[in-house]
Amino acid sequence: MVYLTRLEHFNAAHKLYNPNWSREKNEEVFGECANENWHGHNFDLYVTVKGEPNEDTGFIIDAKKLGKLIKEHITEELDHKNLNLDVDFLKGKMCSTENLAVVIWERLAPYLPEKVKLHCIRLFETPRIYVEYYGE
Amino acid sequence: MVYLTRLEHFNAAHKLYNPNWSREKNEEVFGECANENWHGHNFDLYVTVKGEPNEDTGFIIDAKKLGKLIKEHITEELDHKNLNLDVDFLKGKMCSTENLAVVIWERLAPYLPEKVKLHCIRLFETPRIYVEYYGE
Amino acid sequence: MVYLTRLEHFNAAHKLYNPNWSREKNEEVFGECANENWHGHNFDLYVTVKGEPNEDTGFIIDAKKLGKLIKEHITEELDHKNLNLDVDFLKGKMCSTENLAVVIWERLAPYLPEKVKLHCIRLFETPRIYVEYYGE
Amino acid sequence: MVYLTRLEHFNAAHKLYNPNWSREKNEEVFGECANENWHGHNFDLYVTVKGEPNEDTGFIIDAKKLGKLIKEHITEELDHKNLNLDVDFLKGKMCSTENLAVVIWERLAPYLPEKVKLHCIRLFETPRIYVEYYGE
Amino acid sequence: MVYLTRLEHFNAAHKLYNPNWSREKNEEVFGECANENWHGHNFDLYVTVKGEPNEDTGFIIDAKKLGKLIKEHITEELDHKNLNLDVDFLKGKMCSTENLAVVIWERLAPYLPEKVKLHCIRLFETPRIYVEYYGE
Amino acid sequence: MVYLTRLEHFNAAHKLYNPNWSREKNEEVFGECANENWHGHNFDLYVTVKGEPNEDTGFIIDAKKLGKLIKEHITEELDHKNLNLDVDFLKGKMCSTENLAVVIWERLAPYLPEKVKLHCIRLFETPRIYVEYYGE
Repeated sequence: MVYLTRLEHFNAAHKLYNPNWSREKNEEVFGECANENWHGHNFDLYVTVKGEPNEDTGFIIDAKKLGKLIKEHITEELDHKNLNLDVDFLKGKMCSTENLAVVIWERLAPYLPEKVKLHCIRLFETPRIYVEYYGE
Repeated sequence: MVYLTRLEHFNAAHKLYNPNWSREKNEEVFGECANENWHGHNFDLYVTVKGEPNEDTGFIIDAKKLGKLIKEHITEELDHKNLNLDVDFLKGKMCSTENLAVVIWERLAPYLPEKVKLHCIRLFETPRIYVEYYGE
Repeated sequence: MVYLTRLEHFNAAHKLYNPNWSREKNEEVFGECANENWHGHNFDLYVTVKGEPNEDTGFIIDAKKLGKLIKEHITEELDHKNLNLDVDFLKGKMCSTENLAVVIWERLAPYLPEKVKLHCIRLFETPRIYVEYYGE
Repeated sequence: MVYLTRLEHFNAAHKLYNPNWSREKNEEVFGECANENWHGHNFDLYVTVKGEPNEDTGFIIDAKKLGKLIKEHITEELDHKNLNLDVDFLKGKMCSTENLAVVIWERLAPYLPEKVKLHCIRLFETPRIYVEYYGE
Repeated sequence: MVYLTRLEHFNAAHKLYNPNWSREKNEEVFGECANENWHGHNFDLYVTVKGEPNEDTGFIIDAKKLGKLIKEHITEELDHKNLNLDVDFLKGKMCSTENLAVVIWERLAPYLPEKVKLHCIRLFETPRIYVEYYGE
Repeated sequence: MVYLTRLEHFNAAHKLYNPNWSREKNEEVFGECANENWHGHNFDLYVTVKGEPNEDTGFIIDAKKLGKLIKEHITEELDHKNLNLDVDFLKGKMCSTENLAVVIWERLAPYLPEKVKLHCIRLFETPRIYVEYYGE
């Protein structure tokens, strides 16, 4: 069993704002992240898959093919977008990095080839804060 | 003459959109950067100053003091903000990284101590794109 | 279950020196790390916690709050200190990065909120050497 | 149980080419990586070992000693080499990063001291693509 | 005057070998870099241009357009290639990073728009060795 | 004219303390950097030289040779040392990064080959603070 990780990027705007709460409570809980006019990040997305290297290629999956799957199903939907407003599959969710990682897992997993298992979604919101989800 | 550089960060939303143009022309010129709902970045701001080290301290300027000046006059105004909507000193300007670097220079220079000269504003929009301004 | 990691820094002096050994044996075992006059590092400390995202916030724990806990209980005690001389909770311990990671775990774990579990302390001594401790 | 990781580097040429296939099939499967005249990478190799810190030293293993073992048994064999042509222990293998990580594990594991277990070989082919092998 | 820098990558094989010298002299001068079977690198190419921001766009040049010019005229010619064998415009040149930077300048400069001046080619051979050329 | 830069490292302890001042004044000016028991850093030293590439080698200077000169004359004198106590050529100087960069220039310049000029000493004290000296 070998693990392969591929990095892709997207730049997006978001805010942390619970619509069931008053603005005051949102500002109390989320601070500047609740700014009604949004802020944004360069998100770094590391996708790790696992499997056995194919005998003929030495690959678990071609890293270029993995990159294409991530772009097609994830980053093209998120890049240069407002995560709260523009992304159907985030509608109605709190737009935290934690929730974003879980949704990315759910969106990407069905598109991997049969012998390749999704192992981890690691999502950097800033170089100092990141989240990991293992599908557990 | 010695040069001292200090890195600070801010995370912000913006869009590239010329209000004198139609939406179509904005999308043609700025592509996904013109998304009306904004996108965002983790900006890395490197400020370089120059001067002669003080005999008693060995410092051009205390790097902690430089950091405080940058935070007070620049990054606290920009962090977790919408650069097009929330920042007075960017009003009426195209919100490109080029223009942002020039405005940061103009805002910061007057606050440096007399013997310390501002040398360069280097602003990373992404790890792969950055702008430098030397006040020329 | 989602994992959240936060990076904090501290700069410190230390030496590797076993007081039960002669200076010769210390130099033989620890080489230049045994220099009696100390050396130092910029330590990078990654703290990983795990938990379930809260429904109202989308957070395992607010990353800013986690940062404050790390600063209050760990990095303010270690930053700009001599790890062998200035830090009560390291007294009598060999000041290796391995031991430092274990002590940081023991110091930080009691302060996390009830539903948040400490998962990993990762401590970089240099960009090329790091240690991880999972409380096992 | 504590984990220690050490980074070493090597620069090498390789190509992905299955000699049982036609050139056309190789180009179809491996694309530009099949270029008959080779291409190359700066490989970053992270070796993680695990064990209990020794009471007298605080070390699982001296990181300098671990670095020497990696250099002697792995990177001196691979650095500035053509992985397909110059390296005996890669002969007859598809020269993918996956296979390279597995071979590095097999080569390095026997040389570690008795109380130190090899935990992970992480090999970066580029800053955006890496492979991990845990001996499973 | 503002400076804009864009990073692009290419991975390539090369060797340092002067055909006018004996193999012994090549090995004496270039050491392992003269390995007849090649070695390789992940090259990082930073291209810096300068100009005045356009009033309507705020751009010196659209960073995406600059990226396309670099890809079309430089990195597509070099990526996954053998620099000594596969690249017409390097034929007959010693394949040092110094010479490569100069050739990249000469190849790219004519394709920049009129009001944009090429300022610097910075080429990393490894994360620890890079070359800069300013057209002087 | 081409510029070549080489990165080397050293880890060292120091403090900022002016012996002509009281402890109170030192703490007021230098804060935690004046800790009498020292602190330390992983210093990153970038040395940039300039010259014309040699026709036979394509080199300004062999980067390996430059690395050896830096190690022999600079980093072996500083690595795992106390900059205030252990280094003859820093005696009597305030141990700021500014002064350290100037001294490194003065120590290294005489050892470069005749046709190679020292251009810049860039010294990182932390990833967020660095100093540059151009011999001016």
